[in-house]
Amino acid sequence: MSGARRAVVLLSGGMDSAVVLAHLSAEGFECHALSFDYGQRHRVELIRAAEVALQLRAASHRTALIDLRAFGASALTADIAVPKDRDVEHAHDIPITYVPARNTIFLAHALAMAESIGARDIGIGVNAIDYSGYPDCRPEFIEAFERMANLATRAGTEATERGERWMRVHTPLLMLSKADIVRRGRVLGIDLSRTISCYDPTPAGDACGHCDACQLRERGFRDAG
Amino acid sequence: MSGARRAVVLLSGGMDSAVVLAHLSAEGFECHALSFDYGQRHRVELIRAAEVALQLRAASHRTALIDLRAFGASALTADIAVPKDRDVEHAHDIPITYVPARNTIFLAHALAMAESIGARDIGIGVNAIDYSGYPDCRPEFIEAFERMANLATRAGTEATERGERWMRVHTPLLMLSKADIVRRGRVLGIDLSRTISCYDPTPAGDACGHCDACQLRERGFRDAG
Repeated sequence: MSGARRAVVLLSGGMDSAVVLAHLSAEGFECHALSFDYGQRHRVELIRAAEVALQLRAASHRTALIDLRAFGASALTADIAVPKDRDVEHAHDIPITYVPARNTIFLAHALAMAESIGARDIGIGVNAIDYSGYPDCRPEFIEAFERMANLATRAGTEATERGERWMRVHTPLLMLSKADIVRRGRVLGIDLSRTISCYDPTPAGDACGHCDACQLRERGFRDAG
Repeated sequence: MSGARRAVVLLSGGMDSAVVLAHLSAEGFECHALSFDYGQRHRVELIRAAEVALQLRAASHRTALIDLRAFGASALTADIAVPKDRDVEHAHDIPITYVPARNTIFLAHALAMAESIGARDIGIGVNAIDYSGYPDCRPEFIEAFERMANLATRAGTEATERGERWMRVHTPLLMLSKADIVRRGRVLGIDLSRTISCYDPTPAGDACGHCDACQLRERGFRDAG
């Protein structure tokens, strides 16, 4: 066990969360990765998440099973087609790939794990620039979650009594473009070719190239040269 | 399908959440009950929850499986003894039965279900008077969760754009004593004998009579006559 400060990092197997993990490791955190099997059609990302955790030398990696299919009317979890070739640059609606309250549920589990292992930092790869319009990727959501987290827990309550701030949610990609994320990943020495961002990959794990996530990723790599 | 406004009610099988379900039904809500199998040692409560949902004519009842044992160092989920015969009236610490971020996780799942079924109301039986000192039972936690929920979701975002408030977390027991809860349950015509509050019941489902929850329940019945 190192003496480093621990952080829980939400790791999806995609590019963004891999960069978050490398970023927090570079900042000196002992990173504990957390992935979710929530019945997503792109479950191949869980294998990639495990590879990323190993590549980036996470201190631990855990995949928690949660049952979002029971709730969700989302193209990511239900039998609804993933939209292809949308004009992501000019779309302003929240797409059908939105999973109700997904980041709230993920962060709530990360919060429980953080308190259990004595971490007071959580990393999440949300992005408010090149994103699909999900409400739970906005800075005001993250701030509201942080505030709630400090009231929700024993550790948060005890820290507040000492006049300290307990939980911090790190969002190092929040204001970066996809191209900036690609560049940051390169600087941190990540092999991004092993990450997968696609919402609707083939059974063999190949990206479809047409969903919002593929389009945003491709544009990021193009813009980053 | 009735035209009534829908609510998601967190239902544990205990007395408090049964009273919340009956209360919101009496207020005219079409109540959809949600329970959790989270590896709790008092899992017999899930059977009681199903009985309560039937008795109180919930519109639906769902038990979601979530894996809190992976995180928790709590006497409710891990192999730690449940404290007996504590002086609950004068104890001010947060006891070992505290499960990290439990209500946050429960409410996050309720939020997802609410958005999926078109509900904008959640009911939870938290209580800030006769309780065991859990931080996630306090009004300031509930308010922070509500605020976050309105930012976390598509429905909340759209309502906010229209200048409306979307999600409301109902806590009708928040400021009641256990005796008041018993009285409220009687007025609402609930058969409280089928609820179970014990943290450490026998395999047959009988209450231990000595844990915090048993002590608080017993005092409530005694005070209510």
